[in-house]
Amino acid sequence: MTQPMNDRFLRACRCQSVDVTPVWLMRQAGRYQPEYRKLRERHPMLELCTTPELAAEVTLLPLRRFELDAAILFSDLTVPFLAMDVPFTLKENVGPVIARPVRSDNDANALRLMDPEEDLPFVSASIRILRRELHVPLIGFAGAPFTLAAYLVEGGPSRDYSRVRALMYSRPDLWQRLLDILAENVTRYLRSQINAGAQAVQLFDSWVGALNPVAYRKTLLPAMRRIIAALKPLGTPIIYFGTGTASLLEAMAETGADVIGVDWRVSLDEAWQRIGTERAIQGNLDPAVMLASPDTVRSEAEDILKRAGGRAGHIFNLGHGILPDTPVENVQVLIDTVHEGSGSEG
Amino acid sequence: MTQPMNDRFLRACRCQSVDVTPVWLMRQAGRYQPEYRKLRERHPMLELCTTPELAAEVTLLPLRRFELDAAILFSDLTVPFLAMDVPFTLKENVGPVIARPVRSDNDANALRLMDPEEDLPFVSASIRILRRELHVPLIGFAGAPFTLAAYLVEGGPSRDYSRVRALMYSRPDLWQRLLDILAENVTRYLRSQINAGAQAVQLFDSWVGALNPVAYRKTLLPAMRRIIAALKPLGTPIIYFGTGTASLLEAMAETGADVIGVDWRVSLDEAWQRIGTERAIQGNLDPAVMLASPDTVRSEAEDILKRAGGRAGHIFNLGHGILPDTPVENVQVLIDTVHEGSGSEG
Repeated sequence: MTQPMNDRFLRACRCQSVDVTPVWLMRQAGRYQPEYRKLRERHPMLELCTTPELAAEVTLLPLRRFELDAAILFSDLTVPFLAMDVPFTLKENVGPVIARPVRSDNDANALRLMDPEEDLPFVSASIRILRRELHVPLIGFAGAPFTLAAYLVEGGPSRDYSRVRALMYSRPDLWQRLLDILAENVTRYLRSQINAGAQAVQLFDSWVGALNPVAYRKTLLPAMRRIIAALKPLGTPIIYFGTGTASLLEAMAETGADVIGVDWRVSLDEAWQRIGTERAIQGNLDPAVMLASPDTVRSEAEDILKRAGGRAGHIFNLGHGILPDTPVENVQVLIDTVHEGSGSEG
Repeated sequence: MTQPMNDRFLRACRCQSVDVTPVWLMRQAGRYQPEYRKLRERHPMLELCTTPELAAEVTLLPLRRFELDAAILFSDLTVPFLAMDVPFTLKENVGPVIARPVRSDNDANALRLMDPEEDLPFVSASIRILRRELHVPLIGFAGAPFTLAAYLVEGGPSRDYSRVRALMYSRPDLWQRLLDILAENVTRYLRSQINAGAQAVQLFDSWVGALNPVAYRKTLLPAMRRIIAALKPLGTPIIYFGTGTASLLEAMAETGADVIGVDWRVSLDEAWQRIGTERAIQGNLDPAVMLASPDTVRSEAEDILKRAGGRAGHIFNLGHGILPDTPVENVQVLIDTVHEGSGSEG
């Protein structure tokens, strides 16, 4: 395994100084790229995720076109469900649809503890291919327990995740059991990704913003701390990202994650103060900005760099996944703006 | 017009002392009530809204069963669209579906400025009936410009309102024009409700949490201020409610609203500090708590009363509309808890 030549991203994760601010984009391998759309015409989503050569190829697509400072393994939040005996389908333009949502003790007891190497060998295989090809660090990832539980309990994406919150309040015992199973599986899954060669991991807690800080601290924080404490000894930076987390930032920092990913709903400077500037931050351009003119992309990205103030520990990203309608040219404009606009301060 | 006998709610709106904390519930006339479901079997939603006797009857349903401290006119956020030449349907379990979403200058120019008395006479008629029947204050309401614009631009409810944000960034001129038309219509609509007898009004900005504070202050705050400044001389308390607003609370207070409504994602005590304790606050029990046991409803409601600390200016409410699956018994438990738990401190 050769060391990556570009280590800006890993240095920023550790709050070390960098020449220019590193940038990668959530869903950087995605529908905004014509090459990706072409591949998706021939292969369903899960086939791309579970076939090492294809997953590696998709992961590399955006790297071939743009000077991104990190790659993220092409996969899906639902992949661990394949190892947990949870039947589901991925519905186009909707997301995962869980065949039998988890709502009873029996449903929870049916969830299997996974053996990632045995159950999902394609993940490690994809990572090993990618480490041979890449000259930037490779990020592995998993959904965080709340977000996985949200899918399992709701049966799919939801507007306000009220059913999962109702379960949390009405069946605290079942809720804890569900979180325990998910936390253990997430730990195993990320550990196996790191062992295969992932140089950083991101926990996606996309829907955790449905909770308030009291509920978060009471029911979720212990599980998150357990995952992060188990992975910490491996020495790999851990990014913890959520959306709608304006009231949760302090609690998210208490998990011990190295980097907190924030969405566009908060101002980066204020968010960083609340997280603590000894910890790295990732974010946070509104993905909707990427549908506007190149000039707007430039000025909004510059505003975020200004808020970061050239301080060590900023990883530039969007506040959530890149939108499918994003013009490819704007991605180039964004990356150039970040690299050029941050050089003088770095 | 006789004065209402119970003025706790209005006193709390003005931060005056009260005997016990007033409580009402968003969607208190709704599907959790068997009487309501029965009415809805015979009448489509918009028929209930546009027929004064029916709208008044539905408004009164929860008041007949519970000791609520305010009534809210039964209506829908989309009713003003009837006066703006915006064809739409209300799709069961989805929400409004706009026939031709607003995305171009022509679309915006086609939106009509309304004459509420002429275009929506049933609203004033409903209010006049209710003022004769009610012994608690009557709240009128309208969607706030962002939330109405979100429906118009997206074409209906959305998970992240990225299209409306994309329009905001890519066509700031069109976005301002759209907000101007909506702000003027909202002002006219609420003024006519107050003139007909509404004793307070609530601006529902249900989806404003999709914005960050910079975008809010730049594009939305002026329109919100204009609406509130125009209504202020009428002397009627103005409540401004949104969800997912943890990063927007200070900016929302800058609109000049008398009461800020907060959802469950923030802690009431922290939110009140940020809003400013000279201003009243409304909220903020997680509606999902209402699906748990009566004991949980009681203890979670008591926690909110504790956070309010018996300070003048707290109106108890849920953090968003009551969920259809809520057991009727829990509503009774909640109201009793609020009235009994706040008496000693009031």
